[in-house]
Amino acid sequence: MAAALALAERGVGQTGLNPSVGCIIVKEGIVVGRGWTQKGGRPHAEAMALAQAGSAAHGSVIYVTLEPCAHQSDRGPACALLLMDARPARVVVALEDPDLRTAGEGIKALMAAGIAVETGVMASEARKSLAGFLSRMQLLRPFVTLKIATSLDGQIAMADGSSRWITGDIARAHSHIERARADAILVGSGTVKADAPQLNVRLTGLEHRSPRKVMLGSGDAPDGWEIIRAPADIAKLDCNNVMVEGGAATATAFLKAGLVDRLSLYRAPIFIGAGKACLGDIGLGQLADAHGLWQLCDSRSLGKDRLEVYERAN
Amino acid sequence: MAAALALAERGVGQTGLNPSVGCIIVKEGIVVGRGWTQKGGRPHAEAMALAQAGSAAHGSVIYVTLEPCAHQSDRGPACALLLMDARPARVVVALEDPDLRTAGEGIKALMAAGIAVETGVMASEARKSLAGFLSRMQLLRPFVTLKIATSLDGQIAMADGSSRWITGDIARAHSHIERARADAILVGSGTVKADAPQLNVRLTGLEHRSPRKVMLGSGDAPDGWEIIRAPADIAKLDCNNVMVEGGAATATAFLKAGLVDRLSLYRAPIFIGAGKACLGDIGLGQLADAHGLWQLCDSRSLGKDRLEVYERAN
Repeated sequence: MAAALALAERGVGQTGLNPSVGCIIVKEGIVVGRGWTQKGGRPHAEAMALAQAGSAAHGSVIYVTLEPCAHQSDRGPACALLLMDARPARVVVALEDPDLRTAGEGIKALMAAGIAVETGVMASEARKSLAGFLSRMQLLRPFVTLKIATSLDGQIAMADGSSRWITGDIARAHSHIERARADAILVGSGTVKADAPQLNVRLTGLEHRSPRKVMLGSGDAPDGWEIIRAPADIAKLDCNNVMVEGGAATATAFLKAGLVDRLSLYRAPIFIGAGKACLGDIGLGQLADAHGLWQLCDSRSLGKDRLEVYERAN
Repeated sequence: MAAALALAERGVGQTGLNPSVGCIIVKEGIVVGRGWTQKGGRPHAEAMALAQAGSAAHGSVIYVTLEPCAHQSDRGPACALLLMDARPARVVVALEDPDLRTAGEGIKALMAAGIAVETGVMASEARKSLAGFLSRMQLLRPFVTLKIATSLDGQIAMADGSSRWITGDIARAHSHIERARADAILVGSGTVKADAPQLNVRLTGLEHRSPRKVMLGSGDAPDGWEIIRAPADIAKLDCNNVMVEGGAATATAFLKAGLVDRLSLYRAPIFIGAGKACLGDIGLGQLADAHGLWQLCDSRSLGKDRLEVYERAN
């Protein structure tokens, strides 16, 4: 299942409204098929893996990170049907599909066909892997990562606006890897006007994974950009993962709206002093209310800089 | 030598103008004497260890973190003389004493007396251990640690000034351990007026290590406090280690004056937003000038909070 989850990672940010799923088919100890949700959502991971395995899928064990879909689509047959046809001995599923069109029906269909099904294997890892899809199913909006790059004193720019560069090459490259995992990147209209940011993935071999560009604010967005008027409008973007990259007004608006699920905080070993703060008024009533909202889930050095990743505390 | 350095740690913040030195005497594989500079600076580490060892020091190996003093003092005989009288086989020294009254004379005297002397063992560790004393000898001022406790966005208080609490119990206890290693704690007059801070060590068993209290600013200091008018006046405090605890104006003044050697940054997993920033204008001309000044030397979790320690980059 860990290998299937690793395959699923390949599709994150690329699958549109579909979950990015991974699938591995093992026959007599040998991997005979590997699949992951392809760009735009089709083929599904199971279809790709089954096509590789061919007749070897008969009697195999199939690992899949999300319950196989049971609903018909004009884009291809349901994966549950494909699996039944392939006649594996056993199917191991990490997570049940919360999509109401499947929601257990895929597993039921397999079992009714006499195939052994095991569920819940590495379920918590799968929940992380599928965070964007799960957010869309449960909260009806994408999973939002807020990225902030600051000095040690929490400034994102000098008083005159200059901010190139605060963090170093390695931290910036890391943030481009994160971009490659997003369906869309969002910045405020102020940032668009001031910096005309490219927001693309500038890592060799990953350029094609540059996400959609979204501006928050009023006025016209540049060519090739989408625009939303308020943080809540991310629901209309019809995708799983949004990365919010700033500036301060946009970060503040998303935090104030409670629409941040994950923080990616890059911090350079410098002081700026009286520059531009990373946040404005987030509407905090009293200090005690600020506590208990975030928990650290990663901390590392990236060159001379530090990265800390926080997620919402449960 | 590592054991001698550990003993030296016991005296840090307690030895006034004297370096906090550690000394171990080993005879035929057995520790026969242990010493460290005592409160106020006397007895010296060597004198304490030799008193423990008695005649067992004869033919022993003596490890000491700083070259034994060679100069007469009305507070006791020079350690080099005491060592010569004890007739060890060998003396191992981490660091030569930069004090011009000794500066190699202690080692010379021992060698002239036919005692083998080895120097430079764990010298870089000893330089850290003796950082305060070395700063006073070389820069004619104490070693300064700046402590700042902030939210993730670099705020030290809410807009109304409330700051209890940003960090949790464990981080605060850790900062009290740091206090116990300082000779003096310094805050600005604004902090004195607003918070009337006790600045003592509130850890069971360490209360007696509460440092001297110093206020930076104009006006009268409360009873039991010392006062300086400008950051550079720390030179007049006649001690090795000063901890600067805030507020923002004081931290800014010390950074602006280039009088910070070490940063102790505690950070709570909270956002405050438009509160009180940890720094004001530190006089940074352009962003590039901010780089290369600090290097990370420790990073850890303290409960839910994070601590990062930076020192001046070489």
